[in-house]
Amino acid sequence: MFDRIQGVMTENCALKKDRPIIVGVSGGADSLVLMHLMLKEFNIVVAHFNHLIRPEARQDALAVESFAANKGVPFTLGEESVFEFVEKQNLSVEEAGRELRYRFLFDQAKLFNAQAVAVAHNADDQVETVMMHLMRGSGLDGLSGMTYRLLPNPWNEKIPLVRPLLGIWRSEIVAYCNANHLSPLVDETNNDTKYFRNRVRKELIPELETYVPGFRHRLYQTADLLTADRQLLEELTAKVWQEMSAENGPGYVIIDQRLLNSHSLALCRRLIRRAVSELRPGARDIDFAMVRHALDFAKNPTVTGQADLGLGLCISLEGDQVIIAARDADLPTDHWPLITDQYSLSIPGELDLGASWVLRAEILRDVKTIKSEARENRDNYQAWVDLGEKAPTLNVRPRRPGDRFQPLGMGGKSMKISDFMINEKFPRRARVGWPLVCMGAEIVWVPGYRLGEPFRVTPATNQIVLLKLYSVE
Amino acid sequence: MFDRIQGVMTENCALKKDRPIIVGVSGGADSLVLMHLMLKEFNIVVAHFNHLIRPEARQDALAVESFAANKGVPFTLGEESVFEFVEKQNLSVEEAGRELRYRFLFDQAKLFNAQAVAVAHNADDQVETVMMHLMRGSGLDGLSGMTYRLLPNPWNEKIPLVRPLLGIWRSEIVAYCNANHLSPLVDETNNDTKYFRNRVRKELIPELETYVPGFRHRLYQTADLLTADRQLLEELTAKVWQEMSAENGPGYVIIDQRLLNSHSLALCRRLIRRAVSELRPGARDIDFAMVRHALDFAKNPTVTGQADLGLGLCISLEGDQVIIAARDADLPTDHWPLITDQYSLSIPGELDLGASWVLRAEILRDVKTIKSEARENRDNYQAWVDLGEKAPTLNVRPRRPGDRFQPLGMGGKSMKISDFMINEKFPRRARVGWPLVCMGAEIVWVPGYRLGEPFRVTPATNQIVLLKLYSVE
Repeated sequence: MFDRIQGVMTENCALKKDRPIIVGVSGGADSLVLMHLMLKEFNIVVAHFNHLIRPEARQDALAVESFAANKGVPFTLGEESVFEFVEKQNLSVEEAGRELRYRFLFDQAKLFNAQAVAVAHNADDQVETVMMHLMRGSGLDGLSGMTYRLLPNPWNEKIPLVRPLLGIWRSEIVAYCNANHLSPLVDETNNDTKYFRNRVRKELIPELETYVPGFRHRLYQTADLLTADRQLLEELTAKVWQEMSAENGPGYVIIDQRLLNSHSLALCRRLIRRAVSELRPGARDIDFAMVRHALDFAKNPTVTGQADLGLGLCISLEGDQVIIAARDADLPTDHWPLITDQYSLSIPGELDLGASWVLRAEILRDVKTIKSEARENRDNYQAWVDLGEKAPTLNVRPRRPGDRFQPLGMGGKSMKISDFMINEKFPRRARVGWPLVCMGAEIVWVPGYRLGEPFRVTPATNQIVLLKLYSVE
Repeated sequence: MFDRIQGVMTENCALKKDRPIIVGVSGGADSLVLMHLMLKEFNIVVAHFNHLIRPEARQDALAVESFAANKGVPFTLGEESVFEFVEKQNLSVEEAGRELRYRFLFDQAKLFNAQAVAVAHNADDQVETVMMHLMRGSGLDGLSGMTYRLLPNPWNEKIPLVRPLLGIWRSEIVAYCNANHLSPLVDETNNDTKYFRNRVRKELIPELETYVPGFRHRLYQTADLLTADRQLLEELTAKVWQEMSAENGPGYVIIDQRLLNSHSLALCRRLIRRAVSELRPGARDIDFAMVRHALDFAKNPTVTGQADLGLGLCISLEGDQVIIAARDADLPTDHWPLITDQYSLSIPGELDLGASWVLRAEILRDVKTIKSEARENRDNYQAWVDLGEKAPTLNVRPRRPGDRFQPLGMGGKSMKISDFMINEKFPRRARVGWPLVCMGAEIVWVPGYRLGEPFRVTPATNQIVLLKLYSVE
């Protein structure tokens, strides 16, 4: 067994001989064997965590300490009440214990400048984990189980979590203990079937073996197959993510809608999951329904152009951009000509709206040829308007309560500017500060969107004013 | 339910209104509901298969026939003894029944020029299937379960197998029967837990529900997630396969070793599986161990350069080419200059070796400058040789028992030509017919591989002969 493990430690776990490795040792058979195998080859520190659940745990800590002392290996002890943490964090006892234990191990890793944290999960643990993920409805990621080396992991970005015993069965570990006269501690809570994992181990897996003998070996092999599939899909996702993530910012992720249309469902799902996990790094299980909701929205957005995703995130569509963002994120607005004050624009004249945006008005002389051009205008950021005989001063300002607008092409029908903005799928964030070009109290032009019906160029028009909004960046 | 199914039938199953659809109807609740839903919209033929297992099966056939007659739908009946087929094919009763039933359905599909064969698997069946695949150690393909539309399928390349009820739960089907006054037949063998699937349905899945309530819905959703992942991986595999399959022929597949080195493990595994399934289209479960064996061999071939894979297939490595072939396949040799006879080559002179290969000898005059060129020769298909003062006639022939050779650079050491060929990893098939350039009984040059030590150009050489083997294709 030692030969097999040695290859795993140096290759699969990528462990080196120099810097120390924190080895999590409960004192049970698995971790005792791990310690015993690793201290022959590596520079290890034995780390024990007392969850303060069982009264005899203090004895266990002393026993592990003396194991370590016997072998001349450094020992470090952590303790914290799992029950207190359960109440604070609303977790199960198992989850809370796990979280505290790993926090302790990675704290020690930083303290000792360790190259890795090693834990003693074995092949039976792997099978149990996969089975638990399966029952809870996990996808490929959960079904591929644990890996020999996990980096980044939920506790550290730089220090890997390694599991050298992941290919060794519990029966081999017991045999190794016997052959090497190791006397593991027995944790009675491991037999308590009120814990989900213990019930899976003690009852479910033996029962599945009655259906198909060798079940656990088959499931182990399945996890191995799926791990490779998962890696390939992750590489593909990372590549696409890399290409699309340039516009992301703090608290928001922007995905081009055309990207979602061009890639396979599997990849789109992964991009959404990736977006959510970037915004909510703590979230351990990203719900399938959430991913589906996001993808459905991206294809068929709601009328308001925005929807809740859960986890304090929302999704919106602006043009071709699908934006997933924290509720309180400051989304970028620098590509919009937003204003807060009122400005005057003489005709002809130019107005600096700030953030590199300029509004310009000029009087066109050659009215006849211009008229047909005006009818064929395809650029919403310019407008040919008829302001009457005189050339008045225009004012440019954000919307105000009660503002009404007669959009071109609706037969002179008047509507609230706020309704117009909703109909036109204005990005919500752009509505308040969008510049409106007005003459007196009337809205002449909503740049980027629509001209007002009364100001259109007609056969009777004698003087045409050309309005243009552009960025000089 | 009918609305939901309608979308599934036209979109997921891609069924059209025109050509008939063969609907497999046992008379149980599932197939009765399927028939009832489909006959409203499509042109169907009810097909019933009697496995000749249960005596009351004949009654069932009559009942289904009268259901069909009541609805004015064509009916077709097949029957064959499953037990006889079990003995002939060494299958389980379930496997044999399934095989015979589908053969019958697709035979009928051809007879009726049908667009599809529809069967009545429901969402519970899907969960059972995934669970069975899981227990037997299937990879992603098995775990993603059944699909709404399967084409090609094991029974036909052009007629799809469709499963419109795959998203409908058994409880919904029962409710539909009650609401529509349908009286399904009851097949008591469905309750017999000596059959694997029945035990999974009746015992295992209810038990798994006690671990995680809603287990079956979660597993269904997992299969849905995995189906998308699988599709993406299949597309990737198909793309690579497309690029590499130009050199394949009857009974063999050639995979470039560099391709296997450059692609991920997941993709390599799929390429090997694809190769095996191309060569053995009947093989339903391609063993994980076989795939691993093939990939191990491709990385570290055995000394003989060949190994058995099982299923009557073997794998070999020739240069950069990994060849997976049926034991009796005729592998292509047309890219080699193979000969069976002895030829004479005058100096200077040219010799046609057949299959577009030409061997040519010329005498070089400018000995001094040529000498350094000869030392830097990097093309194994040309050689500068010293044949002494005279220009003798060379002979060109395949190897003979007892032939020995002194390869250049081995200090004049002599070895059997057969050992030289093994050391140099000559493709096994190329060894017997490879042309050897000889002077008298001595081997001067093994084209493509090595010059004989006694014939090398030295400072004392006075006359250099240039030998070249090339293809004029």
